[in-house]
Amino acid sequence: MTNQLIQAHALVNALRKFAEEREWERFHSPKNLSMALSVEVAELVEIFQWLTEDESRNAANDDALKNAISEEVADVLIYLVRLADKLEIDLNDAVSKKIIKNAQKYPASHKT
Amino acid sequence: MTNQLIQAHALVNALRKFAEEREWERFHSPKNLSMALSVEVAELVEIFQWLTEDESRNAANDDALKNAISEEVADVLIYLVRLADKLEIDLNDAVSKKIIKNAQKYPASHKT
Amino acid sequence: MTNQLIQAHALVNALRKFAEEREWERFHSPKNLSMALSVEVAELVEIFQWLTEDESRNAANDDALKNAISEEVADVLIYLVRLADKLEIDLNDAVSKKIIKNAQKYPASHKT
Amino acid sequence: MTNQLIQAHALVNALRKFAEEREWERFHSPKNLSMALSVEVAELVEIFQWLTEDESRNAANDDALKNAISEEVADVLIYLVRLADKLEIDLNDAVSKKIIKNAQKYPASHKT
Repeated sequence: MTNQLIQAHALVNALRKFAEEREWERFHSPKNLSMALSVEVAELVEIFQWLTEDESRNAANDDALKNAISEEVADVLIYLVRLADKLEIDLNDAVSKKIIKNAQKYPASHKT
Repeated sequence: MTNQLIQAHALVNALRKFAEEREWERFHSPKNLSMALSVEVAELVEIFQWLTEDESRNAANDDALKNAISEEVADVLIYLVRLADKLEIDLNDAVSKKIIKNAQKYPASHKT
Repeated sequence: MTNQLIQAHALVNALRKFAEEREWERFHSPKNLSMALSVEVAELVEIFQWLTEDESRNAANDDALKNAISEEVADVLIYLVRLADKLEIDLNDAVSKKIIKNAQKYPASHKT
Repeated sequence: MTNQLIQAHALVNALRKFAEEREWERFHSPKNLSMALSVEVAELVEIFQWLTEDESRNAANDDALKNAISEEVADVLIYLVRLADKLEIDLNDAVSKKIIKNAQKYPASHKT
């Protein structure tokens, strides 16, 4: 359990229980979950669409704005974790491998 | 540290270091990260767009397909964690609050 | 003017006037318009996310549903035309070239 | 035929023929087309994601960049027109109604 980049087992289980209690499993095909994920991400994009980059950098200083963003970030995370669970994808494993791959693709610039 | 739905501090730190080493911080405004997040989600949607729901449910049985999905899931997670970090959003806090809110919005059906 | 696949000059002009009258030009950078376009497309995806493919095929038979879809389709078209206009892209020219390119990429199957 | 904001009948017909010749009709459920549309929009967003707003405003001056954007704009238009056709939505009618609705929602500021 140590040395993990991310531990989400409790969240996986909570969301599984949440979906079962509401009989949502039949709707939660990976195809549908990918659509729901894209819809939640768009709600995040909607918050930033007319802001300048600098305004977006200062969003953490505006409590109402930060709260709205937090809710959308949570929704994205929820659907992402659901999708991974339905396909038996281990998030920690997936992200660990991807970071190694990205490091090879984009080597850090030399600093002497 | 116990009772957390998700623990991502190690990932937050790893991605922060990764961006700093490549001098990507100037590109990583929340506005831009929300765009990058939407692009990665679309690469996930692209995998599922012409599959039937049943085919998408069986994706875990196809190693190449599952691997392709895992990589896109990781990319989405990476940009989501980066965005949350730039805005000082605690993922565990955000998702815990959202699940409580969702439970109020969608009560589980009664089972007697 | 004949033999055009699409003619949208009147729409281009109407939307240009609409934005000018509201002093929206400063918000309508191509970057921002691409974000707004993605948000509108997500509102379309949201309508279909939990429907089966067959239910989506029957959507034209449900007046309220068809109307909701029509509004989102219009919003997507509006931002697409705005974006093209800001970058001096001729829609008819762009789509004509793309169809030729697609025909080369995906040849029609032989029918004897 | 006059006074139309947009005329796309020739494009509708060309795309219908294109799909039929490739036997793509069975894939082109409105649900799937909405996903494909979102994927194409993301390819447009990808072009702009790390550009500043000013850089995006100058994109028309860079032939290679403008060409890349034109291709993605065309792809978005193609899937939008396909989706509208499958649901018997008249684009001119939809956009005309939406502009009237938007004008009521966002009245132009008074200018005396």
